Amino acid sequence: MADFSKGAAWIRGDIKPIEEATIGVTDWAVTHSDATYDVVPVWEGAFFRLGDYLDRFEASLAAWRMEIGMNRADIMEALHAMVARSDLRNAYVAMVAARGVPAIPDSRDPRDCANHFYAWCVPYIHVVTPEIAANGARVWLDETHRRIPPESVDPRVKNYHWGDFTQGLFAAKDAGFDTVLLPDGAGNVTEGPGFNVFALTGERVVTPEAGVLHGITRRNALEMCEEAGLQVERRALPLAELLEADEVFLSTSGGGIVPVAQIGERRFSNGSAGPVASQLRARYFERLAEPRFRTEINYGA
Amino acid sequence: MADFSKGAAWIRGDIKPIEEATIGVTDWAVTHSDATYDVVPVWEGAFFRLGDYLDRFEASLAAWRMEIGMNRADIMEALHAMVARSDLRNAYVAMVAARGVPAIPDSRDPRDCANHFYAWCVPYIHVVTPEIAANGARVWLDETHRRIPPESVDPRVKNYHWGDFTQGLFAAKDAGFDTVLLPDGAGNVTEGPGFNVFALTGERVVTPEAGVLHGITRRNALEMCEEAGLQVERRALPLAELLEADEVFLSTSGGGIVPVAQIGERRFSNGSAGPVASQLRARYFERLAEPRFRTEINYGA
Ligand SMILES: Cc1ncc(COP(=O)(O)O)c(C=O)c1O
Ligand SMILES: Cc1ncc(COP(=O)(O)O)c(C=O)c1O
Repeated sequence: MADFSKGAAWIRGDIKPIEEATIGVTDWAVTHSDATYDVVPVWEGAFFRLGDYLDRFEASLAAWRMEIGMNRADIMEALHAMVARSDLRNAYVAMVAARGVPAIPDSRDPRDCANHFYAWCVPYIHVVTPEIAANGARVWLDETHRRIPPESVDPRVKNYHWGDFTQGLFAAKDAGFDTVLLPDGAGNVTEGPGFNVFALTGERVVTPEAGVLHGITRRNALEMCEEAGLQVERRALPLAELLEADEVFLSTSGGGIVPVAQIGERRFSNGSAGPVASQLRARYFERLAEPRFRTEINYGA
Repeated sequence: MADFSKGAAWIRGDIKPIEEATIGVTDWAVTHSDATYDVVPVWEGAFFRLGDYLDRFEASLAAWRMEIGMNRADIMEALHAMVARSDLRNAYVAMVAARGVPAIPDSRDPRDCANHFYAWCVPYIHVVTPEIAANGARVWLDETHRRIPPESVDPRVKNYHWGDFTQGLFAAKDAGFDTVLLPDGAGNVTEGPGFNVFALTGERVVTPEAGVLHGITRRNALEMCEEAGLQVERRALPLAELLEADEVFLSTSGGGIVPVAQIGERRFSNGSAGPVASQLRARYFERLAEPRFRTEINYGA
C-alpha cells in the first residue's frame, strides 16, 4: 500500500503520495515561475483560519488572472480529502495555481494557457526550528541583496520568486546565521524567506506594510499586539529603527511567532528571546487551538 | 512506440518523450524558482555556438552554487543523445540545473539540497512568429511594470523569474501588441521575455549592458553590426533615445534578429521592418549555417 504518512497531494483530481506528485518540465509554473500559491496550517486535526487563507489565495488568482475551474467549495473539498488521506494531524498544506502550457504550442500569450490547480501537504514545517525559536533566532541582514520590488513582482500575490531570498540564505548560512532579512532599495527592511518582521520599541510595534506579503500570521501578530495593549504601526521600517528596537520578532505560518536574539552583530535581550516576543509566541500556539479559528477535518471518511 | 517527434527529455539518465518529463512539486526549482538554465538552438542538424551557450550555463551554475555532478562532456553527451532520439533537425534545446530538495526534509538551507540536471528539446521556437518578424514586430513598452533589478536577481544568471514579463505580456496582449519591453527604475529600457533590444541611430547601435541577460544572439548581433561597419555601444539605453532611434530590433535564440515596426504609438520605418534590421535578420540565418559555429549531431546512433 502507498505510504501517505510523509505527505499527500491532490493533482488532476487524484490523491497520491507526495513523491508521486509531479508537474511537467515545460509547465509555465516551472519555466516562468508562473504560479501563485498559498499555505494554510493544519493543527491538531483542523485547518487554522482557513477562510482567511482562501481569501488571500482567491485574491492572488484574480490578480494573476488564473482560471482554475474550481470554486471555493471545490478547493475546500480537495484540501479536506487530501489531508484526511494523509492522516496528518499537524500539517503544512500548500495549494497552487499553475499557468500550465498554451493550447497552441508556440504561443507566448499567457492568455492561451490552460491553468490548473494542485495541492500538497507534508508534516507541519517550522521555518525556524522550535529549539532555535525558543531561544531566539540569529538573523543575517543581507545588504548586498534586495527584496524583489513590488513594481517588478507584487509580493502580496504569494509567489515562488525566491532568487533574492536564496542568495540571502546562502550568505546567512555561510556566516553561521539561522535565516535572513532583506532590505528594499530605500534603506528599509522588508521580509525574509517565509516570514514577516516586527520591531518593538517601548509600547510601539512596527511592521512593514509595502513591498511585503501580508502574512496571515502577521495579522495574528497585529491582533495579539492590540489585545496586549501595544500600539501598532504598519509602515516603512528603516534598518536603523529595526536595529535600535527593544525586541524583534518574525511571523510565519510555519511556526508562528519567532523571537529574534540577534541581527548581524546587534544582540537583543542579551542575545536571547525577548519577553514580549516570547509571550506572543506562546499566545499564537494557544490561538491555533481556539475553536473560532478551526475548521475540523473528518479523518474517518 | 513512444512518440519523440514533438520533443524529448533527458532526465535522471533516461531519455523520454517530452510529455513524460516531470519534476516533483516540492522541488525547489518549483517552490523557490531555484533553477538556472540555458537554451541552445539546433539548426539543420547541428548545435549553434554550443561552446558559448555551455560557457554561460557553467557560469550560471557557479554563480548559483549548483553542483549537478556532470562535467561539460557529460552534459554534451546527454544533449546529443536526446536530440538524436527526438530526430528534430531544428530544435529549441533547454538544459536546466534544479536545486532539488534537501536531504534533511525540514531544512531551509540551500546547501543541503541535492541539485540535479535535466534537459528537454522541442521543435525550434520563434519568440515572435517569422511572419510578424519579417514585417516588424509591434512592441508594448510597459511603464507600469519594471524588470526585476540585478540587486534582487542577477539577470546574467539565466533564470525563470518571469513574473515581471508575464504581467507585461498580459498588458501587451490586451493592448493588441506582439510582445513587451520592460524599463528599469531609472528610465532606461532593459529587455523583454526572451530577447535583448538594440537601437540604431545613424551609424550607431546601442544595447543595454547592465540589468539584462547577456544573450548569445546579442553577441551575434554585436559581431554582425561590427562586420557591417556600425559603431557599437553597450551602455544604459534611455527610453527617449529608444523611441527616437531610426530602427529598433530584438535578439533571441528563438528566431534570431527581430525588426521592430512599432513601440507603443511610435512607428519606425513607417510601421515596417527597417532595412538594417532586416539585413541583420537575414545575416543571422546565414550564420546559423556557418561551419565554424556548428556542432553536428549524429542522428544515426
Ligand atoms: C515572503 C513571505 N513573507 C511572509 C510570509 C508569512 O506569511 P504567512 O504568515 O501568511 O505564512 C511568507 C510565508 O510563507 C512568505 O513566503
Ligand atoms: C530575459 C532574456 N533576455 C535575453 C534573452 C536572449 O538571450 P539569447 O540570445 O542567449 O537567447 C533571453 C533568452 O531567452 C531571455 O530570456
